[in-house]
Amino acid sequence: MSKTYVVIGGSAAGPKTASKIRRMAPDAEIIMIQKGKYLSMASCGFPYFVGGVFDDPNQLIATPTGAQRNPEFFSNVKNIKALTSTEVTSIDREKKLVRMRNLQTGQESTQAYDKLFIATGASAIVPNLPGKELEGVTTLQSMEDAIYLKERLASGNLKKAVIVGGGLIGIETCEALQLGGVQITVVEMLDQVLSFLDWEMAKHVENHIRANGSEVITGCGVSEFLGKDGKITGVKLADGRVLECDLAVVAIGVRPNSGLARDAGLDVGAFGGITVNTFMQTSDPDIYAGGDCVEVTNLVTHQKMPWPMGDAANLEGRVAAQNMVLGNNVEYDGFIGTGICKVFDYVAGSTGLSEKQAKRLGYSNIMTAIQAAPDRPGFMGAKPVIIKLVADRTTCRLLGMQAVGTGDVSKRLAIGAMAIHAKMRVFDLVNLDLPYAPPFSPAIDNFIIAAHVLQNKCLGRMEGISVLDVKAKLDAGEKPFLLDVRGPDEFEQMRLGVGETLIPLGKLRANLDKLPKDKNAEIIVYCKISLRGYEAYCCLKAKGYNNVKVMEGGIVAWPFPREK
Amino acid sequence: MSKTYVVIGGSAAGPKTASKIRRMAPDAEIIMIQKGKYLSMASCGFPYFVGGVFDDPNQLIATPTGAQRNPEFFSNVKNIKALTSTEVTSIDREKKLVRMRNLQTGQESTQAYDKLFIATGASAIVPNLPGKELEGVTTLQSMEDAIYLKERLASGNLKKAVIVGGGLIGIETCEALQLGGVQITVVEMLDQVLSFLDWEMAKHVENHIRANGSEVITGCGVSEFLGKDGKITGVKLADGRVLECDLAVVAIGVRPNSGLARDAGLDVGAFGGITVNTFMQTSDPDIYAGGDCVEVTNLVTHQKMPWPMGDAANLEGRVAAQNMVLGNNVEYDGFIGTGICKVFDYVAGSTGLSEKQAKRLGYSNIMTAIQAAPDRPGFMGAKPVIIKLVADRTTCRLLGMQAVGTGDVSKRLAIGAMAIHAKMRVFDLVNLDLPYAPPFSPAIDNFIIAAHVLQNKCLGRMEGISVLDVKAKLDAGEKPFLLDVRGPDEFEQMRLGVGETLIPLGKLRANLDKLPKDKNAEIIVYCKISLRGYEAYCCLKAKGYNNVKVMEGGIVAWPFPREK
Repeated sequence: MSKTYVVIGGSAAGPKTASKIRRMAPDAEIIMIQKGKYLSMASCGFPYFVGGVFDDPNQLIATPTGAQRNPEFFSNVKNIKALTSTEVTSIDREKKLVRMRNLQTGQESTQAYDKLFIATGASAIVPNLPGKELEGVTTLQSMEDAIYLKERLASGNLKKAVIVGGGLIGIETCEALQLGGVQITVVEMLDQVLSFLDWEMAKHVENHIRANGSEVITGCGVSEFLGKDGKITGVKLADGRVLECDLAVVAIGVRPNSGLARDAGLDVGAFGGITVNTFMQTSDPDIYAGGDCVEVTNLVTHQKMPWPMGDAANLEGRVAAQNMVLGNNVEYDGFIGTGICKVFDYVAGSTGLSEKQAKRLGYSNIMTAIQAAPDRPGFMGAKPVIIKLVADRTTCRLLGMQAVGTGDVSKRLAIGAMAIHAKMRVFDLVNLDLPYAPPFSPAIDNFIIAAHVLQNKCLGRMEGISVLDVKAKLDAGEKPFLLDVRGPDEFEQMRLGVGETLIPLGKLRANLDKLPKDKNAEIIVYCKISLRGYEAYCCLKAKGYNNVKVMEGGIVAWPFPREK
Repeated sequence: MSKTYVVIGGSAAGPKTASKIRRMAPDAEIIMIQKGKYLSMASCGFPYFVGGVFDDPNQLIATPTGAQRNPEFFSNVKNIKALTSTEVTSIDREKKLVRMRNLQTGQESTQAYDKLFIATGASAIVPNLPGKELEGVTTLQSMEDAIYLKERLASGNLKKAVIVGGGLIGIETCEALQLGGVQITVVEMLDQVLSFLDWEMAKHVENHIRANGSEVITGCGVSEFLGKDGKITGVKLADGRVLECDLAVVAIGVRPNSGLARDAGLDVGAFGGITVNTFMQTSDPDIYAGGDCVEVTNLVTHQKMPWPMGDAANLEGRVAAQNMVLGNNVEYDGFIGTGICKVFDYVAGSTGLSEKQAKRLGYSNIMTAIQAAPDRPGFMGAKPVIIKLVADRTTCRLLGMQAVGTGDVSKRLAIGAMAIHAKMRVFDLVNLDLPYAPPFSPAIDNFIIAAHVLQNKCLGRMEGISVLDVKAKLDAGEKPFLLDVRGPDEFEQMRLGVGETLIPLGKLRANLDKLPKDKNAEIIVYCKISLRGYEAYCCLKAKGYNNVKVMEGGIVAWPFPREK
């Protein structure tokens, strides 16, 4: 006898699961119940719709061949019954049925299931601040939100907006609205945007956002939304400043929608997400769950936590469907923590652990390397990528990687993600055979060069210092001897202007008298990307200077203001 | 006492080794001896110089900051003595010295060494055919070759050219000259271009080259270069055809320059490359070698062979230098066989083994999957990528991957290369956490989708058939029932026209009467990329059709002529 599968949720994990169940069980009855109006929306595409990359919202719910993913599509093409504007109000695990209400007609009904899949997603967190009900205070989480923002842009009465939150969605929304001609201020409570990055990497992103005309305020929260006649007129910050605006987009994070599951007595984890095992099965063997409403395992930290990403939702749903139909047979082990974000011409991403995260988790012996390099040869139109690698010095295993820049960041992050998935060590990464031709990479790929720097540090052949630590020393009044080994023309175009001495690498050996007489004096060398800096380091070490360090990533990695 | 390091060769591995020795041994004496005029040329960039991506040949020998890598540069910046136009004529291992001749003055001299590095490179193979000495028969291997081709293009007296050989360099040269306005014919003796690809993947590249106005002839060699007044006028093919031309570029491969090493009594391998261990050390412990002149290990096949690639040369040199200075301490294990090539808007590449190579090596139980998908969502300007995965069915280990298309092939190949390096199995690849955002990939990355197809086949959930096998069946007069499940509009725009039946997926269940009555009849289903094809397959299997197959990659993967 054919079984009945009920899927709660019709956004990402839900439709994926329902479709995969159909492929696994062609004769089963499948009912998908969606609270909202739309099905299978490409919600990660909302910022690009708002920003004008495309203007037809139907593209967000279209298949690659242009079919609309509406109830008729699911019925005709996939033989899946899709109910929209229908809310599941409770799950009766005893009777194995769900109760639901049609939000348009108010009609209540029940639906029995043999196996149930919960994909209730997550909701945007809106802080409980005065004025949060004002018109013009919104999130960017639903089709309705996206259409509202698009209409506001089209209306011409949107001049200034405040984005509350500098995470992935906040930054993508900043780009979208700025491209629509709006003056943007991003307000982030933490001391940096994109918290998956370490501070000094995030500062490059902030610099790029400012260079494109938007403002970024970090280290300051929002205390109130100000309004007049029911409409927003400004945002008041915790420090008292008021930012006038016609719109505030709140993007401070999401919270798993696990209430339905919790009410049904299913286990819920420490972060409020539904508890599932690697089969995506909840504490009730007949109920599976996936997507933004569950907690899954971070394969690097071994912690269970929500991982509200569209790609994970699809993969989890595919696993759940196979297990729901055949019995538990395939597993979703977890995620490693990969995220990427485009902002104007810049791309920023991270995979695995940042240095900050690693330290917070108690890794005591970590090793990092920052490296900046062009993403292909100069004659092919090179663009820079700054890479930071984080490794465990004890095991030499790569723990994390971050990359920012205008160059091909996405490929390098994908390489790093594979290395972390495969638990590769630094020494496994120094001789990789990656696809090389001049249109695609330098002869030694940026990722490999970064691994070389890490290997050099690992073997004690290079002592590095981060731009952050150099800045801290200067701010603390220390006076290390800063040695810039670039050419005079480069120095003329761009320089730190913090008291450094210029001695081009080619003239270093003949100008050792310009260095401190005390061989124990701290000398910090750098060039544009600190490759020549490393050569100078080797030279000075050989000449008996005992306290030389390379400023990693060179002047390109310096995120602070420069003299020029 | 400081040691003397002699490096023979100044192109890629040579300068890398010399520079790394300098960083490891700041006080050593380092002499680099180059036969040609130029040092440290980015020879992989020659086609882009010829094709007009840039016009100043000095860019090929410039550092990222624009310094020319000439003897003064090596002397001033790196304290390396670089001799150009100087040929090493013999190595006296007993006396530990090399004998050399200045090719401009004829003067002979010797240079003693403590450690010697051989990077004599490889030479382009020019077949011993009548007419090979004619003006206009050239290779593209040296700066002089590149400048010659650039000048020929500028002269305006170059209308037609024949490229002999459809490998990487042949294809890149085809693009370069075609962009310069020359009518090109590529002649390849094998039955396909780019032999690192399987036949059906290579055909897509050939189709793209033809679509850009160049001609490709496969399965036919060259028998003679025809000329008049000492200049080339045509190329005669083995089948008697004559192609008129003003230029022939021979690019049929390279041969390691191992004569010097062989004469010195060093071991040479089966393919004529110098034998080295993983420390890049030859059979003489004081002599190391690297780059195009050596044989290194293919990590997938465990065979030693030349791997004449610019990236490998640099990595090998870096390893050799460390071992030459400190004693053997780091290893270059080998390569996995990654190659990539841009041709017009198309990118084609391969890593690990092709199906053909795997079969030739005796793998008896291999599994493949071909999958075509857009490289990002449609609303972000999707471009197609066709991926072929090759795996060992016994171990489930990924053996190889090929990718072609106008989309982001380079990133997917890099992911595949990492999977092969890490010896990952198909099941390790189905839930990867790769960098996902709409500007960079679909919600499930193409690479992962391809892994899903392979997993489905592995688990017996899908039986596929390659476009190649479908075509062979049709050519042999077999009459499988070909079922196209796309929409009528898609069918109108593009179709095979080989007797297929169109039943859109959404109408399949209601139209089973149009299928063969015999449930054992062979039915081959497909759509544009065979995702809907797979859904139809699942449906038909459930309806009791016993002999259904999915045509992998769908119509997008069909490289043969179509009706429309």
